[in-house]
Amino acid sequence: MNTLTVDLGNRSYPIQIGQGLLDQADLLAKHISGRQVMVVSNTTVAPLYLDRVLPSLAGLQTATVILPDGEQYKTLDTLNTIFTALLEQRFNRGCTLVALGGGVVGDITGFAAASYQRGVAFLQVPTTLLAQVDSSVGGKTGVNHALGKNMIGAFHQPGCVIIDTDTLDTLDDRQLAAGLAEVIKYGLIYDADFFTWLETNVTALMARDKTALATAIGRSCAIKAEIVAADERESGMRALLNLGHTFGHAIETGTGYGNWLHGEAVAAGMLMAADLSARHGWLDSADVQRTESILRQAGLPTEPPDTMSEQQFMDLMAVDKKVVDGGLRLVLLKRIGEAIVTADFQPDLLSETLTATASA
Amino acid sequence: MNTLTVDLGNRSYPIQIGQGLLDQADLLAKHISGRQVMVVSNTTVAPLYLDRVLPSLAGLQTATVILPDGEQYKTLDTLNTIFTALLEQRFNRGCTLVALGGGVVGDITGFAAASYQRGVAFLQVPTTLLAQVDSSVGGKTGVNHALGKNMIGAFHQPGCVIIDTDTLDTLDDRQLAAGLAEVIKYGLIYDADFFTWLETNVTALMARDKTALATAIGRSCAIKAEIVAADERESGMRALLNLGHTFGHAIETGTGYGNWLHGEAVAAGMLMAADLSARHGWLDSADVQRTESILRQAGLPTEPPDTMSEQQFMDLMAVDKKVVDGGLRLVLLKRIGEAIVTADFQPDLLSETLTATASA
Repeated sequence: MNTLTVDLGNRSYPIQIGQGLLDQADLLAKHISGRQVMVVSNTTVAPLYLDRVLPSLAGLQTATVILPDGEQYKTLDTLNTIFTALLEQRFNRGCTLVALGGGVVGDITGFAAASYQRGVAFLQVPTTLLAQVDSSVGGKTGVNHALGKNMIGAFHQPGCVIIDTDTLDTLDDRQLAAGLAEVIKYGLIYDADFFTWLETNVTALMARDKTALATAIGRSCAIKAEIVAADERESGMRALLNLGHTFGHAIETGTGYGNWLHGEAVAAGMLMAADLSARHGWLDSADVQRTESILRQAGLPTEPPDTMSEQQFMDLMAVDKKVVDGGLRLVLLKRIGEAIVTADFQPDLLSETLTATASA
Repeated sequence: MNTLTVDLGNRSYPIQIGQGLLDQADLLAKHISGRQVMVVSNTTVAPLYLDRVLPSLAGLQTATVILPDGEQYKTLDTLNTIFTALLEQRFNRGCTLVALGGGVVGDITGFAAASYQRGVAFLQVPTTLLAQVDSSVGGKTGVNHALGKNMIGAFHQPGCVIIDTDTLDTLDDRQLAAGLAEVIKYGLIYDADFFTWLETNVTALMARDKTALATAIGRSCAIKAEIVAADERESGMRALLNLGHTFGHAIETGTGYGNWLHGEAVAAGMLMAADLSARHGWLDSADVQRTESILRQAGLPTEPPDTMSEQQFMDLMAVDKKVVDGGLRLVLLKRIGEAIVTADFQPDLLSETLTATASA
């Protein structure tokens, strides 16, 4: 088992990565302080793994909430079903929520924990690659609004993150690829050597080679933990983690939540960011090609949906969380392994990128 | 103008109390950092005071959201109308929300600020006595759930609290009395001399004597600021501020939000707490009489609604936020001016209090 730490003073917590961790009852139990535990999962994950997790909670008052599966259910209404279950079963402020599932389950459960009785504890047990390498770490929680993704939420750190890599055995290929998009992101923004390693190993990762996956997850979590520890509330470098996300969120909102997976939208968005970076003369065209090539090998989309126009992108990006006083800020690449957050891009070049890639 | 400070380190903020403050444009403006301001008010307060506040915001991008008036609208659905307005007008993470109204407006606006893009700034401009002496200070924000009051929310401190005591001129008598309930609470839990002063001045307060009101508001805010500074997250003494609230919240939920005003329910609840304290031999019967007498003089209810049964109280109180591991905790009085939070009350005496006062 590989244990990392997200170093946030008295709110520090471990990330534990390994095979078969769901069967180690004490791993989960030792992070539960009260006597009431609510496990939140979804209709896909619960039949596979809920019975593996519940024995860890023997002796506690245990309840479960099973959400419908999909980004389109990451709403205030779904959130309210968790509050109703908690209140019906008289859960008090000393309770703990456990998120068992992918990014949607983790984000919504975390926000429920942040808001129930003004804040209770929660643990992350991510079961998709995307949640394991990204969304379960760092305390960003929330739900979507019809007008913008992740616009309602809270920073609320979990008490631990338990990553059982065996859960990837049941993940479909499309979800695996979506997770790889975020793995590739870490190479692009922070670690050129890791990017090179990914280029060499992308086929092994797609073939679910256990050793390669463990390496990719471990390195991704280590980078995420380092960045979150340095800038928990995203006042600076944490924004680099949003490479491709401003374009990607526009795609997810514009196509209707759930039609594009988050990682797919981020993949297309990262290539748009690479294109725009190259138009500024920052990234060279060979590196744009490397980016496109690895995304393609991972089976990810490299273009936005042809139903979206430049204007639709501009409208949707105007509510991005990185907008400051009316000015859009984007994460762009100086080179592979180095990103910047900047409002200092040329609007006509952004327009060129959108025209070149968004074809409607 | 009387200026107090809520001392919370780098999140400290001023409470400014005086007449005509709404017309001092710079008071509000100097607490606004970004360029976008959303004023949230309701259908009762906006026609009276919105035009007094807006000139303070000249030069900024200003928008308003007018909520329906009443506790029954303190819901996730109403909260979402604020998010929709913010997104439609492309408000970014640097924006500021201003709560102009009573406790419902303040609580819901504060929670909107806590949750919009994972947290933006907000200011409190309370216009009811209850909001001025209690809910606008201390950062408790949230909405109700059908199964429990204030069960969904966040701790999120405002950047300042501006109390223009002239706004009480337009407050109806019932709302004024409801605010006095919380003023009386401070005497009961924390300051016997203030309680004695209130006994002498309750008629003047009901007659809206400006000097008496200024004294009552100032002392109430000073006590609240002291307690919040000592225990922001209610891990200890802050719970004392909930005297009468466990019973009171049960009344508000049990009768349907909006039928009893919060202060009215708290008044009846405080007398139930006094009755239970006396049954334990802690408070003497003369002090229960003093409590009943001042509440009666303030025109407040001294009994719960006769539609509620002992069992309904017990069911509703079981989800109170002070419940720890299944055990109900109550704020009770040792004497006037001294309260305790305790799970160590005798259940049969609680039953006697409920039987004696809840007549259904």
